[in-house]
Amino acid sequence: MHQSISRTITKIDGGKRIESRDDIAVEEPCEIRLGDEAVAVTMRTPGHDAELAAGFLFSEGVVAAGDIAAISHCPDADELHPDNVVEVRLGPGKRPRRDLRRHFFASSSCGICGKATIEAIHVNAPPALPGPMVSAASLASMMECMSQRQDGFAATGGLHAAGLFDAAGNLRAVREDVGRHNAVDKVIGRALLEEWFPLDDHVLLVSGRTSFEIVQKALVARIPVVAGVSAPSSLAVAFAAESNMTLIGFLRRPTMNVYAGAERVV
Amino acid sequence: MHQSISRTITKIDGGKRIESRDDIAVEEPCEIRLGDEAVAVTMRTPGHDAELAAGFLFSEGVVAAGDIAAISHCPDADELHPDNVVEVRLGPGKRPRRDLRRHFFASSSCGICGKATIEAIHVNAPPALPGPMVSAASLASMMECMSQRQDGFAATGGLHAAGLFDAAGNLRAVREDVGRHNAVDKVIGRALLEEWFPLDDHVLLVSGRTSFEIVQKALVARIPVVAGVSAPSSLAVAFAAESNMTLIGFLRRPTMNVYAGAERVV
Repeated sequence: MHQSISRTITKIDGGKRIESRDDIAVEEPCEIRLGDEAVAVTMRTPGHDAELAAGFLFSEGVVAAGDIAAISHCPDADELHPDNVVEVRLGPGKRPRRDLRRHFFASSSCGICGKATIEAIHVNAPPALPGPMVSAASLASMMECMSQRQDGFAATGGLHAAGLFDAAGNLRAVREDVGRHNAVDKVIGRALLEEWFPLDDHVLLVSGRTSFEIVQKALVARIPVVAGVSAPSSLAVAFAAESNMTLIGFLRRPTMNVYAGAERVV
Repeated sequence: MHQSISRTITKIDGGKRIESRDDIAVEEPCEIRLGDEAVAVTMRTPGHDAELAAGFLFSEGVVAAGDIAAISHCPDADELHPDNVVEVRLGPGKRPRRDLRRHFFASSSCGICGKATIEAIHVNAPPALPGPMVSAASLASMMECMSQRQDGFAATGGLHAAGLFDAAGNLRAVREDVGRHNAVDKVIGRALLEEWFPLDDHVLLVSGRTSFEIVQKALVARIPVVAGVSAPSSLAVAFAAESNMTLIGFLRRPTMNVYAGAERVV
């Protein structure tokens, strides 16, 4: 149960490529059960899971102070990931104050077990094929191009951006939104509505952190390269590696970290 | 349909208080319908909603390229907020490729109409009572205190933090998570499990942006003051103002912006 994991990455600094170690924030699904019933799945960093379950159920109006009798992990629920299922038991005579049989993180792909989940996603969205090649200089230029188009962020400081570029670095679309995943949905939606598919020679750029959800959306759209200005999560890195995708983080000229698929970056 | 709104705020700079204008990123719920059926509600920035709906349904595996015949707003769905419902119609003979009758943003409080939603929340979580008073210097110290405890962020650059402080500035708990809302749930859960309630003389601090969801969680826990290191969303500001809460953004010594409830900051 760690907040971060260490992984070998390729650091690009100007013309230099260095293999180095990097600490990555852990992202894993956590299923919250009320009694025997799953009420929510959230993508979280392991640790303090009892607090997470209690705080979630309380702030969503399902339990009040004093309702909870016990909280424990369910090792029998998932042999591979015993810490990813948390069960909350209410005290005698206590009942949920609200029905919450809905999944809060309800992505198709969401499951408790990372490996099985990734394989399930690959049934409908197989791993990316080799190519295209993208130059480090071109990636840095894409970031600058998108940054110049983040009018909403410049005005408010409160908007995320996503950008779609072809592998040569030509801008196709930039969208801003308070939700990172919405900005990604908007650029993918634009490509769909404009019939730009296939996107297998394209790059998805995001202004902030890169989560599992964002890399998964890129794979479904067949975009093989995802680059973020900030850090990726552990599950984003694992998913990109298993899906033959390229995942770049901390894209800040003249440096960037390549977490998976470094062979595409020249 | 704007990405940002302008609002009068109180800017605190050292000992000075200045009324000024600030642009705030717009956050509003959007219901996505497939035919007549609501399949998802997401908190988004208005604009490019057809792209959002198309990209969301596509990246979640509900539609494939060529399935969509038309996308339009539904002005009759909500007279007050006609732009917050988007209807996607599939072509002849096309059917959804996956059942998606789940709400992606599934908070109890989520609705299409901001005003009615806020009133609905107040039934169970009434507006905050007056008090406590918090000094600007104390708020700045809280931020520094939390920042020194963000070990996971220091290592990875990929973790958000939430901190709970009493009004005098004493630290109660700091938690880190890849999910902002999870970090908030963890500190509220800690308070619940440690029986620190009531929290009506406490301050919730978050390391990044402040969304509606975070301010709502604070109100349910009866925490009247929420401060963020980065920008709040429009709905976070509106909700805080209607709930008699104090909402602070861009908390960066020696300045901060007070978006609601400035009377608590001395």
